[in-house]
Amino acid sequence: MMNNKNIKIGVIIPNIGMTLEEMEIRRRHLLRVCHPNTSVFLVKNEFGPKSIESQVEHEQASVEIVKQAVLLEREGFDVLIPWCGGDPGVIACREAVKIPVVGPLQSSCVIASTLGYRFGVITPLFKNIKLVEQRIWNLKFHHFLAKVRSVDIPVLELRKDLFILLETLTKLIKIMIKEDGADVIVMTCMGFFGLPEELMKRVPIPIIDPGWAAIKMAETYAHMKLAHSKYTYAFPEK
Amino acid sequence: MMNNKNIKIGVIIPNIGMTLEEMEIRRRHLLRVCHPNTSVFLVKNEFGPKSIESQVEHEQASVEIVKQAVLLEREGFDVLIPWCGGDPGVIACREAVKIPVVGPLQSSCVIASTLGYRFGVITPLFKNIKLVEQRIWNLKFHHFLAKVRSVDIPVLELRKDLFILLETLTKLIKIMIKEDGADVIVMTCMGFFGLPEELMKRVPIPIIDPGWAAIKMAETYAHMKLAHSKYTYAFPEK
Amino acid sequence: MMNNKNIKIGVIIPNIGMTLEEMEIRRRHLLRVCHPNTSVFLVKNEFGPKSIESQVEHEQASVEIVKQAVLLEREGFDVLIPWCGGDPGVIACREAVKIPVVGPLQSSCVIASTLGYRFGVITPLFKNIKLVEQRIWNLKFHHFLAKVRSVDIPVLELRKDLFILLETLTKLIKIMIKEDGADVIVMTCMGFFGLPEELMKRVPIPIIDPGWAAIKMAETYAHMKLAHSKYTYAFPEK
Amino acid sequence: MMNNKNIKIGVIIPNIGMTLEEMEIRRRHLLRVCHPNTSVFLVKNEFGPKSIESQVEHEQASVEIVKQAVLLEREGFDVLIPWCGGDPGVIACREAVKIPVVGPLQSSCVIASTLGYRFGVITPLFKNIKLVEQRIWNLKFHHFLAKVRSVDIPVLELRKDLFILLETLTKLIKIMIKEDGADVIVMTCMGFFGLPEELMKRVPIPIIDPGWAAIKMAETYAHMKLAHSKYTYAFPEK
Amino acid sequence: MMNNKNIKIGVIIPNIGMTLEEMEIRRRHLLRVCHPNTSVFLVKNEFGPKSIESQVEHEQASVEIVKQAVLLEREGFDVLIPWCGGDPGVIACREAVKIPVVGPLQSSCVIASTLGYRFGVITPLFKNIKLVEQRIWNLKFHHFLAKVRSVDIPVLELRKDLFILLETLTKLIKIMIKEDGADVIVMTCMGFFGLPEELMKRVPIPIIDPGWAAIKMAETYAHMKLAHSKYTYAFPEK
Amino acid sequence: MMNNKNIKIGVIIPNIGMTLEEMEIRRRHLLRVCHPNTSVFLVKNEFGPKSIESQVEHEQASVEIVKQAVLLEREGFDVLIPWCGGDPGVIACREAVKIPVVGPLQSSCVIASTLGYRFGVITPLFKNIKLVEQRIWNLKFHHFLAKVRSVDIPVLELRKDLFILLETLTKLIKIMIKEDGADVIVMTCMGFFGLPEELMKRVPIPIIDPGWAAIKMAETYAHMKLAHSKYTYAFPEK
Repeated sequence: MMNNKNIKIGVIIPNIGMTLEEMEIRRRHLLRVCHPNTSVFLVKNEFGPKSIESQVEHEQASVEIVKQAVLLEREGFDVLIPWCGGDPGVIACREAVKIPVVGPLQSSCVIASTLGYRFGVITPLFKNIKLVEQRIWNLKFHHFLAKVRSVDIPVLELRKDLFILLETLTKLIKIMIKEDGADVIVMTCMGFFGLPEELMKRVPIPIIDPGWAAIKMAETYAHMKLAHSKYTYAFPEK
Repeated sequence: MMNNKNIKIGVIIPNIGMTLEEMEIRRRHLLRVCHPNTSVFLVKNEFGPKSIESQVEHEQASVEIVKQAVLLEREGFDVLIPWCGGDPGVIACREAVKIPVVGPLQSSCVIASTLGYRFGVITPLFKNIKLVEQRIWNLKFHHFLAKVRSVDIPVLELRKDLFILLETLTKLIKIMIKEDGADVIVMTCMGFFGLPEELMKRVPIPIIDPGWAAIKMAETYAHMKLAHSKYTYAFPEK
Repeated sequence: MMNNKNIKIGVIIPNIGMTLEEMEIRRRHLLRVCHPNTSVFLVKNEFGPKSIESQVEHEQASVEIVKQAVLLEREGFDVLIPWCGGDPGVIACREAVKIPVVGPLQSSCVIASTLGYRFGVITPLFKNIKLVEQRIWNLKFHHFLAKVRSVDIPVLELRKDLFILLETLTKLIKIMIKEDGADVIVMTCMGFFGLPEELMKRVPIPIIDPGWAAIKMAETYAHMKLAHSKYTYAFPEK
Repeated sequence: MMNNKNIKIGVIIPNIGMTLEEMEIRRRHLLRVCHPNTSVFLVKNEFGPKSIESQVEHEQASVEIVKQAVLLEREGFDVLIPWCGGDPGVIACREAVKIPVVGPLQSSCVIASTLGYRFGVITPLFKNIKLVEQRIWNLKFHHFLAKVRSVDIPVLELRKDLFILLETLTKLIKIMIKEDGADVIVMTCMGFFGLPEELMKRVPIPIIDPGWAAIKMAETYAHMKLAHSKYTYAFPEK
Repeated sequence: MMNNKNIKIGVIIPNIGMTLEEMEIRRRHLLRVCHPNTSVFLVKNEFGPKSIESQVEHEQASVEIVKQAVLLEREGFDVLIPWCGGDPGVIACREAVKIPVVGPLQSSCVIASTLGYRFGVITPLFKNIKLVEQRIWNLKFHHFLAKVRSVDIPVLELRKDLFILLETLTKLIKIMIKEDGADVIVMTCMGFFGLPEELMKRVPIPIIDPGWAAIKMAETYAHMKLAHSKYTYAFPEK
Repeated sequence: MMNNKNIKIGVIIPNIGMTLEEMEIRRRHLLRVCHPNTSVFLVKNEFGPKSIESQVEHEQASVEIVKQAVLLEREGFDVLIPWCGGDPGVIACREAVKIPVVGPLQSSCVIASTLGYRFGVITPLFKNIKLVEQRIWNLKFHHFLAKVRSVDIPVLELRKDLFILLETLTKLIKIMIKEDGADVIVMTCMGFFGLPEELMKRVPIPIIDPGWAAIKMAETYAHMKLAHSKYTYAFPEK
C-alpha cells in the first residue's frame, strides 16, 4: 500500500556558466520538498547561452536541452525538468522523449491559479515584460494574470546581494498587491529559487518557488504514472 | 536537507451513505501516491446528501463540509480535501479556515492542462453535462476543454460492476479522442477513483485520477508551505 | 387583447434579521414599477445568516432559499426572487422548482449590458471585490465589466445614514466614470435599493436598481410565459 | 405607491411594404404582454427596403429609422423600438435621441442568457448565418451561442403558411437541442413573432418572442427611468 | 514572370466637403507606396455627411458609399477603398460588389498586429473612444488593443495646423508607450494621413498610416487575385 | 511622387535539402506579385532539418535562421522571410536584427482575417493539427479559426504529384466549407505555394498562398517604412 517508488528526476541546466557548487545548492533546495525515494540529478549542457533573456537564447538553449533530454531518457530518468523560468525546450522535449517533461513556468502558473484569482508575475528584466506576457498567453493562463512586472536586474546579477534582492522584491510585491490586485505571485526565473519562502514571511500572499513548483509537478507526474501523450506531442521525424 | 515533514491530510466525505470499508479502500488508494510521512484521514459528515448530482445537493454538502473543515483545522490538520468531483465547499472552506483546501476537480484540470492541448471531461450523468461545462468555465479552464461527456450512470451505481464500467469508459474515451480531439481525460466524480490507472493501459492518452490529483496537490501545498491568501478568501463575518 | 394576467411574485428574504417594517418598505418600492395585477409577497427565511458577505454565508443562505422556494411553488407563486445581490440559491432553485427564479445580480447585469459599453460594479465591502469579479465572470458578463469598487461599509450598516451613503456613492461613481470608463453602474447589494433613482439626478449615467431589475425581469418571464428549462436545470435526485 | 405611469412606445417599421392590417396584428400581439397604461404605436417609414436580409438593407433601413426616431422623440414618445431582428438603427438612434431605444435582438439575447447555458439562434436565410454570428459577437453574447441555423425561407414568405412554418421550426429546434446543445432559442427575425408561444407547447425549452422581448425591455427602461447615457452614445455633430 | 498587372484602385470619399486640391494631395500620398502600374482614382460622393464622427454619420456615409461602389465596379475598377478610418460601407460593399473592398481601419489593425504585442489607437474626438473600442472588438482585434486615446480635435480641424498636431501626437504617443504599454500605433482617421512617417522620426515605435495601409492591402488583394467570398458576403436581395 | 524604391528581400530557406532549381521556381513564383523594383534572393541554410514537421525541427531551424538573418542584414537586405509555414525564427529574428522579419503564417492569417469570418487551415500532417491550433492561438487569431485539417502527406512528398494534390485539396476544402463553415483557407506549409491560384478556380472561397502573403507583407513593411520596434523585440544579450 505504501508508496516506495524510486524516482530519478533529471534537471537540465542550459546556462553553461553555472558552477558545480551552485548546482549543488539548487539540488539541496529541491530535495527539501521531495519524497525520500526521489533522486535529483542536475546535468549541465555543454553548449548554449550564459543566461536566457531573449527568444534567441531561449531557442538556442532549447536545441541543447532536447539533445540532453534524449540522453537522459536513455539513462533511465523518470522525469525531466529544464532549469529555466521561460520553459525552453519543454514542448520540443515532450516530442523527443516518452518520459514526462516539466515546465517550471507552466507548473508555477497552474499552482498559482488554484491559490487565488489573479497572479502577478515577476521577471528579471524590464525589456522582457511583453515576451513574458505572451508566454502566459501561450499557456492559456492570461485570464489569471494581474500584471507582469520586473526588478530590472540581469539574470546573472540577480543573486549577487540576496539581502537587497529581498528588499526590492518585497517592495515590488506590495505594489503588485495594491495596484494590480495580485493575490498570488509567480516568478519567471529560476534565479529567484529559495526566495519565496523568505518573502512569504514579509507579504500576506502566497508566492510560488519555481524550482519547488517544478519538482513537485515532476513527482506528481511520476507517482500518478502520467506522461505527455504521444498523440499530442508526436515524435519528430527522426 | 531531507524532507521529513509530517503532513496530516483530512479528506471530508460529504456523502452520508459511504461505509467504513469503502472509506478504507479510498484511503489505501490515496496512500499509494503519498510521501511516507503523509497521514491521510477520511472523515464522514453526519448530515448531507447521499450523492451529489445537482447544484442543490452541491450546496447542501457545502454547508456541512465547511462545518467539518473548521473542526478539522482545530484538530491540527495541515490540508483538507472535500471528497467530491464537483468541488463543493472548496471556495467557502478557503474563507472559513487558514489551512489550504484542495479542489479535486480544480486539481485534475490544472494537471490535465499541462499534459496536452484539450482535455475531455467525463461525468456520471447526462443531465449534468451543462452544469459541469459551467464549472470548467468558472475555473477558467474552458480554453482547454474539448467536450464534456457522460456514461449516464448514477453516482451510487457507478462502481457496481467495475468490469462493465471499464468497458464503457474505454469505448467512450476512444470516441472522445477521435471525435472531440481530446488528448487528456479529466473525470469529475470521485467514484471513478482507481480506474484511470487501468484505463491508461487501454487507451493512448493520460487520464487523471481525481483522488490522486487532489492528494498530490495537497502535498504540493503543504511541502511548499502554500495556503490560500486571506486577502483573497476573506474570513466570513463570524 | 389586454394583458390582465395576475402574477404572484415571491421575494425570499434570506437575512433573518430583517424587520417586518423593513420588508414593507421594500415591497412598496418594488410595486412602484409593477403591472397593477402583479402581487408581491416578501417571505423571510427562518434560518440563515444575518447578512451575506462571504461565500460561506452565500451557501448557507442558498440551502434555506431552496427550501422556501419549494414551499412557495406549492402555494402557487408564479415567479421567485431571492433578495440578495449575490444571487444565492438562484441556480439551485432553478433545479428545485419549475417556476422561473430571478437572479437580481444577473438581471442587473443584463439590463446594464444593453445601456452602454462597460458597467462598473459597486459592492459594499472591499474584501468582496474579487469574489464579485468572479461572479461577473461566472455569469459571462466579464467583457462588459469596467471595474468592481466598494464603499467599504458592512451590509447591515449601509442604510444607517442614507444622506452620507448618497454622498459617498456620488463621489465613487464620478471616479468610476473618469478612471474606469464606466458608463453604467450595477450595484451588487439589495441594500442599495431605491438609491439609483436619486443618484441618477447627480451623475450623468444610468444606474441599475437591483430590486427593480429583478422585479421587471420577473414580470418579463411571467408575461412571456418563460421558465428555466428542466433540460438545463435538471431536478435534483429527490 | 402604485405604478400608474403612462408610457408611449413607438415601434418603427422599416419595411415599407407592410400593410396597415399587418401592423395592427403586430400591435395587438405586443399589447398582450404590456402594462395597461402602456400605449403602443406602429409607425412605418416612407423609404427603405422591402425586407432586411443583408448589411446593405440593414444600413439603408438604419438611416430612415434614425430620421423617424428624431420625429417621434419630438412627439413625446417615451421609448422606441425599430421593428427588425437585426437591430438596424439601434446604435445610431441611441446617439440621435435622448429617449431609450430598444434592440429586439439585443433584448432577446439578454433574456435568453438568463434562462439557460447556450442559446441557439434561428434566422430566415441560410446566407445570413455568418452575418448573424457576427452580430451576436458584436453584442458580446458569443459565449452563450450554441449555433446559428436557418429555415432558409425569405423574410417576406415566412408567414405565408404558418402551419408549415411551425412544423419546420419544431423539427429544426429538436435538432438544435440534440446536436448543438441549445437550451434556449433566440429568433433573429420579427417575422417569427407569435410563434414561440406555440412552439413552447411542442419542444421542452424556452423560446424568445423577439417582439415581446423588445416590448418588455421597453417597459423595463421606462419604468426604471433608464436611458442610454449620452456620455456613451454622444450626439452626432448636427 | 514579372508582375506587370495594371490595377485600378477606386478611393471613395464620403465627406462631401473635400476640395479637389485636397483630394489630389491624398492621391499623391497614396501613389508614393504603389506599384508603378497601379492607378489610383479618388471619387467623391455627392451626398453624405461633412465628416464622420458618429454612428449616425457612419451609416449615412455607408449608404452613399455602396451606391458609388456599384458604379465604380461597373466602370472596371479592381479594388475599392472607402476613405474613412471607421470603415463605413465596408461590409455592405463586400455584399454589393464582387471586387475586393478594403477597410482602412481593418488594414491598419492587421498590419499593426504583426509588428508588436499591443497597439494603441488614436482617434480625433474624446467622445468617440467607446465607439472605436467597440469597432476594434467587432474586428476581433481586441486582444491586441492597449488603449484608445484621442487628441480631442474635430476631424475637419485636424489638419489646420500640422505643426501643432505633430507636437500633440508626439506627446500623446509617448504617454501611450509609457502608461498603456503600446508598442505600435493605429490611427482611426484618414485625416492623420502622412503624419506617421514624420512621427516615426520622433518616437521609437512603428505607426501605421491608414491610407498607406489601405492602399497596400488593396494591391495585396489584387496581385494575389483575392476577393471577398460571395459565400460569406452574399449579394443583397436586389 | 512615384514609388521607385528598390527593395531587397531575403528569403531564408531552412530546409537543407532544397535544390537550386527548386529555389529558382519559388523565386519566380514570388516575383509574379512583386513591384518591379523588388529583388528577391533565396538563401539556403547550411545546417538544419530536411523538413520542419515538429517543434524540435522548428527550433533547430530557428537557430540557423537567426544566424542567417544577422548575415543578411549586414549585407544590406531590407526585409527577411524565413521560408516555412510555421514561422520558425520569426520572433527570434525580430530581436536579432533591425530590419522587419515576415512570418508567412502570420501574414496568411492577417490577410485571411480580412476576407471572411472564419478561415480553415490546412497542414500537411495529421499529427501536427494540435501544434498548428496552438500556433494560431499564439498569434491571437483563434477567434477566426474554423478548424485545422490535414491532407496527411509528409512535407517532402507534398509536390510529388501536383495533380493528385490538387484533387485532394479540392475535396478537403469542399468539406471544410460545408462542415466547418470555413469561408477562407490558410495553408500552413510553403510546400503548397502556387496551388491556391489553381484551387480558387475550383472552389468558391479565397485561398491564401503563403509565399505571396509573405512577399506582399514584406513589400508593405518596406514601402511603409515599418519595422518591428526594438522596444518590443529587444536585442538579445550579445
